[in-house]
Amino acid sequence: MSMGGPAIILVSPQMGENIGTAARAMLNCGLTDLRLVGPRDGWPNVKAERAAVGAFEMMPPVRVFEKTEDALRDLTYVYATTARDRKMVKPIVTARFAAAEAKERIAAGGRIGFLFGAERMGLVNDDVALADALLTVPLNPEFTSLNLAQAVLLVGYEWFQAGDTTPPSQLDTNGSPLATKEQLHAFFAHFERELDACGFLRNQEARPSMVRNLRNMWSRTHLTEQEVRTLHGVVKELTTLRVPRK
Amino acid sequence: MSMGGPAIILVSPQMGENIGTAARAMLNCGLTDLRLVGPRDGWPNVKAERAAVGAFEMMPPVRVFEKTEDALRDLTYVYATTARDRKMVKPIVTARFAAAEAKERIAAGGRIGFLFGAERMGLVNDDVALADALLTVPLNPEFTSLNLAQAVLLVGYEWFQAGDTTPPSQLDTNGSPLATKEQLHAFFAHFERELDACGFLRNQEARPSMVRNLRNMWSRTHLTEQEVRTLHGVVKELTTLRVPRK
Repeated sequence: MSMGGPAIILVSPQMGENIGTAARAMLNCGLTDLRLVGPRDGWPNVKAERAAVGAFEMMPPVRVFEKTEDALRDLTYVYATTARDRKMVKPIVTARFAAAEAKERIAAGGRIGFLFGAERMGLVNDDVALADALLTVPLNPEFTSLNLAQAVLLVGYEWFQAGDTTPPSQLDTNGSPLATKEQLHAFFAHFERELDACGFLRNQEARPSMVRNLRNMWSRTHLTEQEVRTLHGVVKELTTLRVPRK
Repeated sequence: MSMGGPAIILVSPQMGENIGTAARAMLNCGLTDLRLVGPRDGWPNVKAERAAVGAFEMMPPVRVFEKTEDALRDLTYVYATTARDRKMVKPIVTARFAAAEAKERIAAGGRIGFLFGAERMGLVNDDVALADALLTVPLNPEFTSLNLAQAVLLVGYEWFQAGDTTPPSQLDTNGSPLATKEQLHAFFAHFERELDACGFLRNQEARPSMVRNLRNMWSRTHLTEQEVRTLHGVVKELTTLRVPRK
């Protein structure tokens, strides 16, 4: 796990379970620098361990601080996550924008932190004033209640996506190569020969457009070599016992 | 809350709590069409109600089905969410791609569903085979365990972002307009006059670059009118009792 990613700083977290699920969400997103400011139920915490489902064993030790200032000392840019309007003159950014910006700041030598407040009240304004920007996750304005781990997950998710290279869309062919046009055309010929033989294409006027429609349907399915073989077999078996049309 | 958004279909969900937290995550993202296939602990479910923190009251009634096929009947395109490779020939898409694609399909008259499997095992292959595409959320490959509500949250989050128009970055000026250049230049003049008077700028060779550096610093802060007034006051008070330099 590469270090150097943003720090997640939980200020005055209350329930141990929430620290554990937040750690799990962090690790899901490749984040491992967890800092706690004044955790209500102390540290270490058995309930946090249990809720983390093994996440803490894959991260450096959690660091605990008395004051928010202390937890931010080595950082150069800090985002305060908040759902409420803070009446402060500060940039407000989305999670997606913050993730891309954080990547750039880190590339330029910066060290980034994301501040999260306590379960109920969120961050106090004096902590928000320590941050460089406010991070607000755009969500349904009629129902914004997010738990702590979910807020960490969404911020972490955007961080991971900002560095991820997964192709947005790909066809899994399960090891079988896609059929070549030649293989596809051979299947078309086999299929249409049998449709002629059974009389399905007997209307000579309609035949060209029916053939085109069927070819379009097969083309849209992006068949693999294996699937083309299966379809040859299907057509063959369907026609084996057929009595010739009179 | 606008209807017509994608349906979330939970197949064989086990714990009521997870159905409740999934519903909460849905509503966070503006999704309200929840369908359950064979919920283990029955429906309605008190634990689900409790975990939903009021979400069910803001959604149409949850529909329960015996078989996955039944839950999909009215849909035209279905994404099966899965973390594992299914050895099936099917498109694999990211959550972000799926969200954008779903928006387009709905605009074209389609009705979309996202299938989620049971807590431990995920979807069985026969259910996956009913879907049009596999949806896999790119996350840390060394720690992918996501709970059901978190998986629903990430898919729903991307859905919401795909239709969201929040500016990625904006400066909240708390009602005070940004200072005009004229106001800013007047402050520069006041500040530099006092720096001349106290002798801070007495090195005439260095003066131009020092002035430029200070002006750059103030420019980067994007001051509001209110802040410029505050700074005038600060400079005035700092210099009020000063004894003239000899």
